[in-house]
Amino acid sequence: MLFTLLENGATDADFEIAFVDVMKGEHKQATHLKRQPFGLIPALEDSDGFTLYESRAIARYVNETRGGKLTPKTIRGRALMEQWLSLEATTLSPDLGGILVQRVFAAFKGLQPDAAKASEHAAKLAPSLDVMEAHLAKNTWLAGEEFSLADVDLAPYFAHVVKTPEADIITSRPHVAGWWKRVSERPAWIKALSYGKF
Amino acid sequence: MLFTLLENGATDADFEIAFVDVMKGEHKQATHLKRQPFGLIPALEDSDGFTLYESRAIARYVNETRGGKLTPKTIRGRALMEQWLSLEATTLSPDLGGILVQRVFAAFKGLQPDAAKASEHAAKLAPSLDVMEAHLAKNTWLAGEEFSLADVDLAPYFAHVVKTPEADIITSRPHVAGWWKRVSERPAWIKALSYGKF
Repeated sequence: MLFTLLENGATDADFEIAFVDVMKGEHKQATHLKRQPFGLIPALEDSDGFTLYESRAIARYVNETRGGKLTPKTIRGRALMEQWLSLEATTLSPDLGGILVQRVFAAFKGLQPDAAKASEHAAKLAPSLDVMEAHLAKNTWLAGEEFSLADVDLAPYFAHVVKTPEADIITSRPHVAGWWKRVSERPAWIKALSYGKF
Repeated sequence: MLFTLLENGATDADFEIAFVDVMKGEHKQATHLKRQPFGLIPALEDSDGFTLYESRAIARYVNETRGGKLTPKTIRGRALMEQWLSLEATTLSPDLGGILVQRVFAAFKGLQPDAAKASEHAAKLAPSLDVMEAHLAKNTWLAGEEFSLADVDLAPYFAHVVKTPEADIITSRPHVAGWWKRVSERPAWIKALSYGKF
């Protein structure tokens, strides 16, 4: 939601980041469960007390209420954005997330990464990334010529995966790699990183 | 997409259903791959040749271009719809679909259902359905007081699961069961069923 806020021109005065300390179990305590009944992060609390969870729903809400810059102006742009948002949620993220479970989150739990599992997830991503490669050979962004929520929702996964031994699933595909370079060079993304979490 | 079309008042003259014969491998042939590069169903071809895939994106596109009746009128209604659409795609459908793989699709392949696997999926759904039960105790529909795409996108899963031995995950929760009764009694749903597929 930070990338979405910043793309819409938000400044530090417009939001507050409250870290929920998962290591201390704060995500399973009453204060957080009231915002997020599954005990997961993130959750949003708007200035009028409205609460919302599910990162993808929060990004849409923040975009809609803070400028709407990440919604394409044409029906076809929105249709393509939705196609890629759906692919992100159901087809790409489970395996991108699977790589991160081994390469990023295992260390938090003091576990060794399972390289074979990470490789399996990388292999399962190949057909989807081939479709993404063909799509980005003809389009600047996932929704076409307009940068949108579809690019934003994939950014955190790509930012992490590109630093793992599985990075070649991105770097070996020139149009996917070029797209990620364009996303990661956006001023809002660079600023989002400066907050230390995204 | 049929339920979405019919909720928006479409008649037989407004659309054509082209069945792709999966048993004959038609989904992996060039005609279909041009519409759907993953070789999956469904795909949409609009009257002007525009093609789109991913069922959730198709439902949104059909709704947006054919009346928009399934988009709540308030920002909070839309936010709640998005929260439940996201839960549907990432949290509910994988296990609802897992039950159907055993109870519906195994038979198509001439396989015996694996009852233990179906039970595992049912057990994994319990926490999410408890959250849904609490939500529906206070709301008529998933987005609040307006029927929306969130209700529509879950309907096909519920229609099948309620006929399996795992049906009690629905019937044992009075507000979830009441919601499903309201959805399944909508004239557009009853009409969608009359086409033989949904």
